[in-house]
Amino acid sequence: MPDVVSLIQAKRDNTRPLTGDEIGWLFGAYAKGEVADEQMAALLMAIYFNGLDGAELRAWTGEMIASGETLDLTDLGRPSVDKHSTGGVGDKVSLILAPLVASCGAAVPQLSGRGLGHTGGTLDKLESIPGWRASLSNAELTGALKSVGAVIAAAGAGLAPADRRLYALRDVTGTVESIPLIASSIMSKKIAEGTSALVLDVKTGSGAFMKQTDKAVELARTMVALGEEHGVRTRALVTRMDTPLGRAVGNALEVEESVAALSGEGPDDLMEVTYALAEHMLALAGIDADPRAAIASGRALDTYKKMIRVQGGDPDAPLPEAEYRQEALPAPSSGWLTRLDALAVGVAAWRLGAGRARKEDNVSHTAGVRCLAKPGDYVQQGQNILELRADDPARFAPALEALGAANVFAVGSQPPPRVPLVVQEMGG
Amino acid sequence: MPDVVSLIQAKRDNTRPLTGDEIGWLFGAYAKGEVADEQMAALLMAIYFNGLDGAELRAWTGEMIASGETLDLTDLGRPSVDKHSTGGVGDKVSLILAPLVASCGAAVPQLSGRGLGHTGGTLDKLESIPGWRASLSNAELTGALKSVGAVIAAAGAGLAPADRRLYALRDVTGTVESIPLIASSIMSKKIAEGTSALVLDVKTGSGAFMKQTDKAVELARTMVALGEEHGVRTRALVTRMDTPLGRAVGNALEVEESVAALSGEGPDDLMEVTYALAEHMLALAGIDADPRAAIASGRALDTYKKMIRVQGGDPDAPLPEAEYRQEALPAPSSGWLTRLDALAVGVAAWRLGAGRARKEDNVSHTAGVRCLAKPGDYVQQGQNILELRADDPARFAPALEALGAANVFAVGSQPPPRVPLVVQEMGG
Repeated sequence: MPDVVSLIQAKRDNTRPLTGDEIGWLFGAYAKGEVADEQMAALLMAIYFNGLDGAELRAWTGEMIASGETLDLTDLGRPSVDKHSTGGVGDKVSLILAPLVASCGAAVPQLSGRGLGHTGGTLDKLESIPGWRASLSNAELTGALKSVGAVIAAAGAGLAPADRRLYALRDVTGTVESIPLIASSIMSKKIAEGTSALVLDVKTGSGAFMKQTDKAVELARTMVALGEEHGVRTRALVTRMDTPLGRAVGNALEVEESVAALSGEGPDDLMEVTYALAEHMLALAGIDADPRAAIASGRALDTYKKMIRVQGGDPDAPLPEAEYRQEALPAPSSGWLTRLDALAVGVAAWRLGAGRARKEDNVSHTAGVRCLAKPGDYVQQGQNILELRADDPARFAPALEALGAANVFAVGSQPPPRVPLVVQEMGG
Repeated sequence: MPDVVSLIQAKRDNTRPLTGDEIGWLFGAYAKGEVADEQMAALLMAIYFNGLDGAELRAWTGEMIASGETLDLTDLGRPSVDKHSTGGVGDKVSLILAPLVASCGAAVPQLSGRGLGHTGGTLDKLESIPGWRASLSNAELTGALKSVGAVIAAAGAGLAPADRRLYALRDVTGTVESIPLIASSIMSKKIAEGTSALVLDVKTGSGAFMKQTDKAVELARTMVALGEEHGVRTRALVTRMDTPLGRAVGNALEVEESVAALSGEGPDDLMEVTYALAEHMLALAGIDADPRAAIASGRALDTYKKMIRVQGGDPDAPLPEAEYRQEALPAPSSGWLTRLDALAVGVAAWRLGAGRARKEDNVSHTAGVRCLAKPGDYVQQGQNILELRADDPARFAPALEALGAANVFAVGSQPPPRVPLVVQEMGG
């Protein structure tokens, strides 16, 4: 029987990789309480410093998957393909993409989480729709995938419970920001979910979790390898998250923009990322279809409405609106907006009530930020760049403080160069 | 109020040193249970990797001292001076040194711990003396220091209790081997003990905790600086621990050898280290005395007997002896013993019952190893190098296994070069 202190020391000193048997023993002993949280925390910090090699990571992820149930999506009559984003500001792509790809013939089993910090969560956004509920039984899930083709629901407690416990521990011990631990956390849930194929949207830039592109590329590569090793056809796009995606940041505001996008009125940057992901998903699913046509024909919007109704929501009901609005960030001169920092806008929306600091917190359905101008737009001197929304006017001051830092936005005499949002693509 | 995750992240990423206020908050919150063991474990592992700078270490040690009581030894009528060894195999120097230096006029307040692993503990050794007890009240302690001048006793629970809790956490989380954490653990207890001066014996070599000399020097330097910063005149000797010190390894066996040393019949290597430490202790205490004369005159032995009697022991009673003996390690050829590995002998003694794996374990008073030959001795082919002693003959096989590894000993055609045991001296 391994001794946990010697495993911690081996990882700490990088003397040798942990064996599959040792990692199996570790997860079993942790589940039984024979390895304590403080021992796992020390090991996680040692992994933060010294990483996990390919075989260690495969074993680690395998134990997380094996800690719970795995769904079987082979019997749906449609090829399954999912998408995961590492999270950004204004990133409502899932809301558009799931019904869009489903309307082309795929099954999209989007099991999602909630937002934390400055990045929003897909479930939080959908919960601003009157009547919509996030929880589905496994039978309801597969039923909806067969009938509608797209489901966005809360990942059940049965999927990778070891990841849930480890993530909670990482969250309080400063061990979240580790590429192998992030990769195994994301991939264990997606593999347990049973999807046959997966496209990852790994964000890079100020509003992303991985601010440096080389780290985002490393995370993407690690996750693609893990997916392939577990029999899931996996591709990853590394995409820019320097400025909010679209013009809406906040739960109901993002649902509204998603519906506009499904109606053919989406902002260019949002559609650029959405279509790039959709094309890869359809390719992995072996479906020869044009996602632009699915939107133009109204099929994608129709699938969206069905998807919302299956979970009790009324897609035609008016969305709630915030009681208070305030414009902010006047342009100091006329010119082209060259920069609008995603992180600052994300933190402002969070402080307005759209996000949560701890997972127990509630979020406001209506709070958030609308971008009245985006980089590339011409603005007049004195024109406000943002509109803030909140349920409580006391929220404006802390949000404005986040927007008051240097470098949050810039106005120049030339339009900024147009750069593609997809930085890199990888996977077979 | 600081947030513990941000403190962990700052240390993990080495972005900035922790402030004294933050370290003070951390210790207070840990004591109150607002910082959990898993959070402290993650921080300790981050400290393992990124260290503590001088100001952080001073604050960290200060909080450990302030967590409990500090003794006042200014009123003894004798200058106080203590010694601490980082631990080795056959290191019974404290048993000789405390009465020796006391017999020259100093007060030596040796508050000690128990052994763990292959290194023995001073209290474990003395407990093999019939009647002797390790625990003294603070009043008994100062009374004995006034009357006898030397006390070797268990450090009370009131001294640096934060260190006790942190050490227990480090022990199970693979975070023991960190120079700043070792330095603060040792020095917080010695400073709280109230000694005016301190000589450190920092061991280096196979049987030492710090096997590499550069690490031992770094630890020594760190502790000397900490002592001086807290007003304790501190010196350190870095000494070799490649082979057992003296010929006896094990509790009663080491008491027997210590009494022989106090009677003027100590082995050369043991006396070399003892006299070097004694001279530095006397110099720091401002006492002009010759420790060799204190032994030759019998004064040191007399003080030893008084010291044992004050704590209920009978220094003239026969020591317990092990029921089973077995010789081991026959010389493969005639020649000079050039090497006898301290770690292997220490592990053998531990497995024979002299040491403990966990702090709850009991130790055997009588088990251990006698070195029938030491490096520099001439041995005949077939002559056994060691004699093993145990209360249970089943202990011999695991001990012999520890001695069966390659390189445990060597016999050569030339006597080994004589090297001084004191590698380096430091401190004012």
